[in-house]
Amino acid sequence: MSEATFFNLHDLSQGLPRELAEGITTRIFAGDMSMLSVARLEPHASGTLHAHPEEQWGVLLEGTLIRVQDGVEVEAKAGDFWRTPGGAAHTVRAGASGALVLDIFAPPREIYLSPGAGFGTPESA
Amino acid sequence: MSEATFFNLHDLSQGLPRELAEGITTRIFAGDMSMLSVARLEPHASGTLHAHPEEQWGVLLEGTLIRVQDGVEVEAKAGDFWRTPGGAAHTVRAGASGALVLDIFAPPREIYLSPGAGFGTPESA
Repeated sequence: MSEATFFNLHDLSQGLPRELAEGITTRIFAGDMSMLSVARLEPHASGTLHAHPEEQWGVLLEGTLIRVQDGVEVEAKAGDFWRTPGGAAHTVRAGASGALVLDIFAPPREIYLSPGAGFGTPESA
Repeated sequence: MSEATFFNLHDLSQGLPRELAEGITTRIFAGDMSMLSVARLEPHASGTLHAHPEEQWGVLLEGTLIRVQDGVEVEAKAGDFWRTPGGAAHTVRAGASGALVLDIFAPPREIYLSPGAGFGTPESA
């Protein structure tokens, strides 16, 4: 294994940058069967409700946020993680100190393989 | 979304327990298209070299370890993450303070859906 396959959560320069929403930026790391996205949310930043067929897991690494999924809001603290089945409408709202979130997609979200902005999907599945 | 789809890295009671090797225990959280495994490694615990067709990512959440993949050893510190393509032989050796590792498999490793022990594969792919 070469050094090139090693990354770090606090130095994301090797990832493909993407602005998901105002105050929410991410870096994308694509594999063959899954994809990681390490998203930094500024304090009180809000995503937009969206859905996609790919399964998603989220891991809250730092900060706090409100997770919205299928119309239910849950407060999350660092260390919490959750699953989003394909097709479930979801978004997040960061807390007062912002948040760092590791998102995992399987299979990879094709639209995130190219530079761009936004969540790549309309507000419903 | 019900509370039941929320988990925490430091309270893994909802995951399926598995002993991967002496001093390496994990909890499995299975999705439809991917699977998370949160592994606790005791100080200096060693895995055994193994391989599987599923893609894997590892995220070192706490501690230090030596990552062995395709015969190359890399020292990892907290925050490092890495990708293991399907079929690549790999293992880890924990450092002096042990380690907490989030492993991600896509697709899910079927053998980890059932209670058991070990990495579930022979030493070569």
